[in-house]
Amino acid sequence: MGYHEFTIEGRNAVMEAFRSGKSIDKLYVLDGCQDGPVLSIKREAKKQDTIIRYVDKERLDQLSETGKHQGVIAYAAAYEYAEVDDILNLAKEKGEDPFILLLDNIEDPHNLGAIIRTAHLAGAHGVIIPKNRAVGLTATVARTSAGALNYLPVAKVTNLSKTIEELKKEGLWFAAADMDGTVMYDANLTGPIGLVIGSEGEGVSRLVKEKCDYTISIPMKGKIDSLNASVAAGVLSYEIVRQRLAGNK
Amino acid sequence: MGYHEFTIEGRNAVMEAFRSGKSIDKLYVLDGCQDGPVLSIKREAKKQDTIIRYVDKERLDQLSETGKHQGVIAYAAAYEYAEVDDILNLAKEKGEDPFILLLDNIEDPHNLGAIIRTAHLAGAHGVIIPKNRAVGLTATVARTSAGALNYLPVAKVTNLSKTIEELKKEGLWFAAADMDGTVMYDANLTGPIGLVIGSEGEGVSRLVKEKCDYTISIPMKGKIDSLNASVAAGVLSYEIVRQRLAGNK
Repeated sequence: MGYHEFTIEGRNAVMEAFRSGKSIDKLYVLDGCQDGPVLSIKREAKKQDTIIRYVDKERLDQLSETGKHQGVIAYAAAYEYAEVDDILNLAKEKGEDPFILLLDNIEDPHNLGAIIRTAHLAGAHGVIIPKNRAVGLTATVARTSAGALNYLPVAKVTNLSKTIEELKKEGLWFAAADMDGTVMYDANLTGPIGLVIGSEGEGVSRLVKEKCDYTISIPMKGKIDSLNASVAAGVLSYEIVRQRLAGNK
Repeated sequence: MGYHEFTIEGRNAVMEAFRSGKSIDKLYVLDGCQDGPVLSIKREAKKQDTIIRYVDKERLDQLSETGKHQGVIAYAAAYEYAEVDDILNLAKEKGEDPFILLLDNIEDPHNLGAIIRTAHLAGAHGVIIPKNRAVGLTATVARTSAGALNYLPVAKVTNLSKTIEELKKEGLWFAAADMDGTVMYDANLTGPIGLVIGSEGEGVSRLVKEKCDYTISIPMKGKIDSLNASVAAGVLSYEIVRQRLAGNK
């Protein structure tokens, strides 16, 4: 588990990185450079929504660590994901009931980073994200997590529903955030818990929700739809914190 | 009260807008244009951290509403601020104890927008921001508020401490968010309340904190410093909601 950034330099290396599906945060390209390999790299970058910056040769030379950039330098982030077991073990080590956040369809890296930050501060033992709709753990996620990404295990799983089933065998209960759920103050959120948060627009997907033991909601007034996903995750997480503290009194 | 965006076109009009202190969100400039008046406008824009976009003539012609842009078009936001009394009246109309958020030093427009959104959904009656450290209510704030800016009164005051004193006479109690404060679950947050939130780095300033009746904190574990300001505002606001609902049972 851990996060670090590194550069990839030179045409073949950068192209290879894109092709192998590495998470590239930013691509620096020599301004005005129009030859074949560079155009192919730019096409690939656009496909993957990588930020492209056009800079002059001096700037590229400054950024280069190898001195052999050939007009292209990519910034990539490497994060070694945790396993779900690491999260359970962390809870065990601390002698606490597991408290895990599962994120279904959170696609905005700022929200993902803010949720990881909140989860860590609320005392959750880890975050689980699905592989398919991957926002990778990019530099933006790392930055908005304010360092929490270095402390909190984040696991990536193929199938969120299946992971929920497996974790139920470990004694966890699952609560999905849902506008039509039980008001969170009236739900029992003590004990080993997995809190499932969906995206702002769609919420938790139907298949995942069906696997959960219950749905919970944040009471809302006002004339607009919903809270920001990271604020909602914070409010729900702290209701769990409150109930845990009250239970221990 | 209300928010709308509009364009300002032409060199004199744009320069005049900058000089008069209008909140300009974005400036479009004809790419390559280097003459005196345009350079002056660009200098002014940089001083005020306005986003500058260089575009070609066709794009400017598209954006123009008057057809007379002379190479520069500015996007400005206009928000008609509410008065503090409007906020109190809103509470009175609803027959509720006033619940107001006061923001001390929140400078990030995304946080400001998210807090306005949360405040509206948590049933607060308004938000008060200080004039001096003005993040104006820009397009970014409006967008991140997800429409709440059109429903929730936002008042701008010269001196936050003085406003707190005046509101105390109206029966409000003031709680400042502070890492060393009473844990929020143990504080009595029912009744007419003003919740004061500071910036992530500095927190609520000393002078404002001294005017408050008490300080409250969010319990935090983990190895990093603090929650995102908008998440903290959400968690604290919903503790107020919880105590109000519990009090009414």
